[in-house]
Amino acid sequence: MATIIPLTDSTRPSLAQTRKKDPLARLTALLDEDLAAVNQLIVQRTENNVPLIPQLARHIIAAGGKRLRPLLALASARLCGYEGQRHCKLAAAVEFIHTATLLHDDVVDASELRRGQPSANALFGNQASVLVGDFLFSLSFQLMVEDGSLDVLRVLSNASAIISEGEVLQLSTKNDSETSEQSYLEVIRAKTAELFAAACRVGAIVAEKPSAAEEALRTYGLNLGIAFQIVDDVLDYAAVQERLGKTVGDDFREGKITLPVILAIHRGTKQEREFWNRTLATLDQHEGDLAQAQELLRHHNAMADALDRARHYGAIARDSLGFFPDNSYKEAMLDMIDFTIERGF
Amino acid sequence: MATIIPLTDSTRPSLAQTRKKDPLARLTALLDEDLAAVNQLIVQRTENNVPLIPQLARHIIAAGGKRLRPLLALASARLCGYEGQRHCKLAAAVEFIHTATLLHDDVVDASELRRGQPSANALFGNQASVLVGDFLFSLSFQLMVEDGSLDVLRVLSNASAIISEGEVLQLSTKNDSETSEQSYLEVIRAKTAELFAAACRVGAIVAEKPSAAEEALRTYGLNLGIAFQIVDDVLDYAAVQERLGKTVGDDFREGKITLPVILAIHRGTKQEREFWNRTLATLDQHEGDLAQAQELLRHHNAMADALDRARHYGAIARDSLGFFPDNSYKEAMLDMIDFTIERGF
Repeated sequence: MATIIPLTDSTRPSLAQTRKKDPLARLTALLDEDLAAVNQLIVQRTENNVPLIPQLARHIIAAGGKRLRPLLALASARLCGYEGQRHCKLAAAVEFIHTATLLHDDVVDASELRRGQPSANALFGNQASVLVGDFLFSLSFQLMVEDGSLDVLRVLSNASAIISEGEVLQLSTKNDSETSEQSYLEVIRAKTAELFAAACRVGAIVAEKPSAAEEALRTYGLNLGIAFQIVDDVLDYAAVQERLGKTVGDDFREGKITLPVILAIHRGTKQEREFWNRTLATLDQHEGDLAQAQELLRHHNAMADALDRARHYGAIARDSLGFFPDNSYKEAMLDMIDFTIERGF
Repeated sequence: MATIIPLTDSTRPSLAQTRKKDPLARLTALLDEDLAAVNQLIVQRTENNVPLIPQLARHIIAAGGKRLRPLLALASARLCGYEGQRHCKLAAAVEFIHTATLLHDDVVDASELRRGQPSANALFGNQASVLVGDFLFSLSFQLMVEDGSLDVLRVLSNASAIISEGEVLQLSTKNDSETSEQSYLEVIRAKTAELFAAACRVGAIVAEKPSAAEEALRTYGLNLGIAFQIVDDVLDYAAVQERLGKTVGDDFREGKITLPVILAIHRGTKQEREFWNRTLATLDQHEGDLAQAQELLRHHNAMADALDRARHYGAIARDSLGFFPDNSYKEAMLDMIDFTIERGF
């Protein structure tokens, strides 16, 4: 699972932020009380007599995450007119699932860093990361069982299964420079977008809306998630993102086969394919290779076209909210689409 | 499954045909001998002592179909450098699967017409259509078993299962004016695009190409198929298609919820949603309703935006062929993408 890019930068607001007045901050402000309840639940539930559990859990949960997935669950519930509090518990469950997959993902990737900080496995070891990941999964299901909705349990347990499938599928495409765009899309749908979709569906379920609303929110979440991951993968090669607090070229160094690279490989010469093969498949990388990769991406218009692909999914997400009444939640959710795609560019 | 639109019109060539010199005709010409072998197999295998079987099978197989799916299997094999003859048998198997689903689909929809001709069920009755459909399915598996490749059997039996799933899913969205775009995409992927993808994969399998080629061709077929079906659904409301030999508004009269309509519904007012609900959900249609529907589609830019969505899938299909050497097959397959999207516009 890709690192979450900090979406706000208080020191140097990007163009997109200036234009859209940071919709993430606006959504966070709109859902201030709900989000406080979610954060309180996260702290409460990760308290434990085994000290390593709260230490490790809070390390990963606190480390700069923007609570994007819980926000989607909360916003979807409020968009559906829900006035209760069940959605907070379920939003916490969504965040626990997400965090558990991050922990396990870092172990699988043997990552040293996450969001610019030492990763949990680097600090606490692989065994603790695996086990605390399992613990967070169990916590998420405990929260859902307490809530008692079998529909929610079905949606989130399906999403968990699909995320794991996606991670396994990704293992098989990693360092494979011949990965197809379709495989890439299937991986990011599974490992990222399905949890976005599930979070949104949970909002419709607690609000007891008819299935059309749940379907509309599934469409929103799924397509926002696909766009989000494509843009994340583009930003990994974008020099401009340096000021967003993420290092450029992490995916390159790991040999991740992401959409910009897939486009450049498919459009490149045989000689260029040998370059990609050397650097990404066999990970035989030298000084200047990242710059050369960025030059090839520019030459084949791969970053711009990958963003165009992301805009397609954004357009689907936008149309999906048509049924909902106009209000501040809907407006913030619509702005989130543009912001997701234009952040950093 | 939507009616196949005749892709050529000898009397009045469309703009797209003039521009691209009809890539379908060019692909057909390139694969002339292979296609003749496929047609011969189709005639041979549908010969039967039960006279109703060849009558009905040939009625549906001969009725103006352009052998698009067999052409994809043949072209993919040749693109992969295959020089044998196995692909002809398997292309016939693909056409039998497609034809079987058409027969069953017309029964389920109680269609009176297919490609402007009386449908098989209208002429021969539902029972014969169901049973001959089953017979054609069995024929397709007989052909695959004769060929002996378990890989081909796996790919095409999976595709058959997915098509059926898609048809069942479509039953649940038909006349549901709140169908989400994501559901629509999942239905057309299952009922149309998966067989396009499987046909292309078969070409790579008989050519014994590595999995990257099969993956690339899967990406091509799947995305071409999605684009094809979206455009088909747009053409159903496009006045210009009248000269392509198809009646306008078939989908409207049946209450099919296709992409242009989904966009118009999601973008429309409450009053407009009531119009779509009356006409498509309860099928309470009066004179002037189709014109009103077309006016709403125009007003919300739904046709143009649906075509833009199709272009996204076309772009993915185009990039997927990057690994293959430049030759006349590749050129024709690339031109097929533009032609699929621009036909009739």
